[in-house]
Amino acid sequence: MSQYHAPLHDIEFLAASVFPLDAHLEDCGSSLDASLVRSVVLEAGKFAQSVLDPINRAGDIEGCRLQDGAVRVPDAFQHAYRAFCEGGWNGLRQPEEYGGQGLSYVLSTLTEEIWHACNPSFALCAMLTSGAIETLLSAADPALKAQLLPRLISGEWTGTMNLTEPAAGSDLAAVKTRAIPKADGSYAISGQKIFITYGDHDLAANIIHLVLARLPDAPAGAKGLSLFAVPKYLVNSDGTLGARNDVHCTALEHKLGIHASPTAVMQFGADAGAIGYLVGERNEGLKTMFIMMNEARFSVGNQGLAISERAYQHAVWYARERVQGRIVGEEERGGTILRHPDVRRMLLAMKSRIQAMRALGMYISMRRDEAHAAGQPETRRQARERVELLIPVMKGWFTENAQRITYDAVQVFGGMGFIEETGAAQYYRDARILTIYEGTTAIQANDLLGRKTLRDRGAQAGGLLDEIRQLARALQEGAAASRAFGERLEHACVHLRAAIDWLLAHGAEDPRGAHAGAAAYLELWGTVAGAWMHGLRLRAALGGGLEGEARQAAQASAQFYADHILIHAGGLKTAICEGAESVDGFPDTRWTE
Amino acid sequence: MSQYHAPLHDIEFLAASVFPLDAHLEDCGSSLDASLVRSVVLEAGKFAQSVLDPINRAGDIEGCRLQDGAVRVPDAFQHAYRAFCEGGWNGLRQPEEYGGQGLSYVLSTLTEEIWHACNPSFALCAMLTSGAIETLLSAADPALKAQLLPRLISGEWTGTMNLTEPAAGSDLAAVKTRAIPKADGSYAISGQKIFITYGDHDLAANIIHLVLARLPDAPAGAKGLSLFAVPKYLVNSDGTLGARNDVHCTALEHKLGIHASPTAVMQFGADAGAIGYLVGERNEGLKTMFIMMNEARFSVGNQGLAISERAYQHAVWYARERVQGRIVGEEERGGTILRHPDVRRMLLAMKSRIQAMRALGMYISMRRDEAHAAGQPETRRQARERVELLIPVMKGWFTENAQRITYDAVQVFGGMGFIEETGAAQYYRDARILTIYEGTTAIQANDLLGRKTLRDRGAQAGGLLDEIRQLARALQEGAAASRAFGERLEHACVHLRAAIDWLLAHGAEDPRGAHAGAAAYLELWGTVAGAWMHGLRLRAALGGGLEGEARQAAQASAQFYADHILIHAGGLKTAICEGAESVDGFPDTRWTE
Repeated sequence: MSQYHAPLHDIEFLAASVFPLDAHLEDCGSSLDASLVRSVVLEAGKFAQSVLDPINRAGDIEGCRLQDGAVRVPDAFQHAYRAFCEGGWNGLRQPEEYGGQGLSYVLSTLTEEIWHACNPSFALCAMLTSGAIETLLSAADPALKAQLLPRLISGEWTGTMNLTEPAAGSDLAAVKTRAIPKADGSYAISGQKIFITYGDHDLAANIIHLVLARLPDAPAGAKGLSLFAVPKYLVNSDGTLGARNDVHCTALEHKLGIHASPTAVMQFGADAGAIGYLVGERNEGLKTMFIMMNEARFSVGNQGLAISERAYQHAVWYARERVQGRIVGEEERGGTILRHPDVRRMLLAMKSRIQAMRALGMYISMRRDEAHAAGQPETRRQARERVELLIPVMKGWFTENAQRITYDAVQVFGGMGFIEETGAAQYYRDARILTIYEGTTAIQANDLLGRKTLRDRGAQAGGLLDEIRQLARALQEGAAASRAFGERLEHACVHLRAAIDWLLAHGAEDPRGAHAGAAAYLELWGTVAGAWMHGLRLRAALGGGLEGEARQAAQASAQFYADHILIHAGGLKTAICEGAESVDGFPDTRWTE
Repeated sequence: MSQYHAPLHDIEFLAASVFPLDAHLEDCGSSLDASLVRSVVLEAGKFAQSVLDPINRAGDIEGCRLQDGAVRVPDAFQHAYRAFCEGGWNGLRQPEEYGGQGLSYVLSTLTEEIWHACNPSFALCAMLTSGAIETLLSAADPALKAQLLPRLISGEWTGTMNLTEPAAGSDLAAVKTRAIPKADGSYAISGQKIFITYGDHDLAANIIHLVLARLPDAPAGAKGLSLFAVPKYLVNSDGTLGARNDVHCTALEHKLGIHASPTAVMQFGADAGAIGYLVGERNEGLKTMFIMMNEARFSVGNQGLAISERAYQHAVWYARERVQGRIVGEEERGGTILRHPDVRRMLLAMKSRIQAMRALGMYISMRRDEAHAAGQPETRRQARERVELLIPVMKGWFTENAQRITYDAVQVFGGMGFIEETGAAQYYRDARILTIYEGTTAIQANDLLGRKTLRDRGAQAGGLLDEIRQLARALQEGAAASRAFGERLEHACVHLRAAIDWLLAHGAEDPRGAHAGAAAYLELWGTVAGAWMHGLRLRAALGGGLEGEARQAAQASAQFYADHILIHAGGLKTAICEGAESVDGFPDTRWTE
């Protein structure tokens, strides 16, 4: 197996030259600077390399077991989880008030990538807990916060997100779980939830479930959902653990991947009803849950980057070891497969997408910092709007990229890629969930199209596109080495503009036609946003941020992205603007003929 | 689970209206006609539906075991294999002289699709046996033929293909297995082979291994390989089985998919050397093996179509059952997900590719019939050349399509797609081997580029492209409903022509640059060839071959293909003609930075 290395060089380049990270941290009142960020990333990389990466395959093989009503995760996870919490990694960006370290989104995004790269099954536990913490922070009353947050932030307890039911997956309006008010102000929760990540496990003393349920007098549909905190063990007033609550894992799913992450069927209130506590306002549960969901969508996008990076490193390692075949254009035999043009093409397709994703993830996390902590309200507002536009792009495009990248990584291994011992197949299997959970790619595409583009008549989307186009022009007027790239980027912007215009013109009168192109619209946005990041990288590299072969590498990667990925923008535009009719034109009686 | 239905309607349309199948069969001196083809396909569909499909998931779960040196396949395969052989399915197209039924390639291609759709792990056994039969038929001496062929054709024995060694995968020139001549005219074979499909199993009384090995005086490299038949049990002169030969399975691989198909590590001659018999001329083993390999490449392409069809049927079944979410443009809730525009887009992307593949597979198999049996030598020659051009397209493009199609099929299932019980994940896992074995996609792409395009200066490729372009023009001049399609097809032909011209102009002086675009060239050829098939289908449908909704379906599928798939031809052309430099420009010191 290859050994994982945190992508320090790339992060340093981004922090020093592409984005003015020191200025950003200062603006957001952070105590961090770029050199401290570097140190923390270095430490995270060491921890992940030595503790999380070596147990990734063992976790896949061992999986999780449901025994006597309790879930056991792989044995090796016990030590790793304790070490993770002791290292303070769980509460990195959480408020110091509750025992966290109060560091920035940028930093937690970088460390999160490292955890998910080395062990996505393991990292999901902290990811879900983090989402629960954010939700409680923003919506719980002070007493509940004081009771729950310190132990969630320390990692002593963990959190979950209980949304899905058998008939309510993408469509949460169909949630049926019930909450009956009790005399003491708590609620009796009853119902079944499925696909609950880390719904039960033996890593922590308690689990706080955030559960969407319906009050007796609630209106039908999405506007009748409330959110409740349902602890696995009730918490006494002195903070000690009390009785076992009436919430139980009744089954674990057998999944294609992330075997070491338990995916539970949860039964609430098989007997009297599980005791739960209202979080936020009655009937506003979905709004509150969206905080958690946006958090999770950002993180799943980041997971896409993370698994891609790990699969890529694994493939490069093999390509440098494996000797096979005569190399085109070389006389001598005995070259490694890294010299085969098609292997290079695959590795560059991976690398250029990964670099684009990491830069875009950092860009969005900087805006998230600003949305929380920038001095000027106007900066906070603009940052929030930009984040909202880009979250579906990050979730949708990063995770689709992860499919291609883990696919190509298997391909680089040839026959060995199909053999589980090699490890490449696990990345491929693990990645497959990413375009499904926390909203499928279609859900992201519809969000980008409907809520993020049509609703404001393209104001946000158009505003960002103008920025990208200005960069494209500047690149064409700048250094000779950036002109060809700038031209391709500008062409792609023209295609995206045309797609937006078509969608704005047809979205109201022909919503089905517009939505037929939603997936292509998401892919087009991701493709252009990735090129935007390569444009920023290229400008920084040519402006002195990189020298010698490092500069040459940044140029080649950007040019590859433009020549092999960005050039499909025109086709995507045509699919959006001219491809709607054939989607709805197929007669439903003929699907299986 | 969904129930499999053989694609009878599509096959009938192809046989009756798209290709003149009756005339073709007559030209090739076949005793078949289209109506007999229909009956056989109907029977094959029933057999596959009732016997093979129901054990596909059980086989995946049970897998294969190596116990006391012998391999056991899933229990359920025993009955199925006996029934398969008793039905005469094993020898469908093999010569009657040796007990086969002497039917055409067209027919065996159609039935082969059906086996692989329902149970690729099972069908691989017959597929490998069939390749061994072809090889023996074309190269073995009469005595060996008489000894081996009848029992291979009846299915009493099975065959394998022993090529790969740890250091000789894509590069067979590196094969090290040795063959020492013995006094009685046989050879002592010793060496290790890996990735041997059905290398050992308990379905048949004997296994005939075709093994690439090197004679003591053989030249180095690919020109020093000879082919040997090495039986698991030696065969006495009276045809009974004799001593156990010195060839053993020493390990089974743990694979991502096709769990029920044993992938064996084979040790030849651990003791005295396994006894083998020369097949064909000394040192011409690779040439002989290419017969088997081309056979296998055709079949693996067909497997790509087959798994795609099964995954597609499964997804349609679920899309028609599952109710979820508000349907865009519809007031009422409660519609199935089949009404979601993005689900339709995915299903059409699958269906339109599947229809293109089935038509192209049938086209190629008709040319294979002609190459074997057409009355005119000129027809045979032309057919052979066309087959040689299209085999890498079929292997490469069909199997890459299968990845997208099985991926989308999982996506249609949403969260349930990631759960193994649903079955969609198995199609996805099983399909993953297809772009690897029998030559990776890169090997196919290099074959298409080097041997099939550059070697004859584009004569074959250009000839076929001219034919396709004529069709594109005819469609533009024909019925109004085919004009838009014809235009897109002609544009795509122009792009492909430009790509061929660029490759011809640069292939000699810059072979690495040309090969950097090989994968895109393969994809472009597949994309255009698929559109060619849709063009033929459209012409036949509009010319009276289909009526009503069936005609509308053919039109919508063709138009979808043009609007969503074919429109990427321009991007692929650009990647080929302008993307070579960035592939080689990346400095090797910077891959992991």
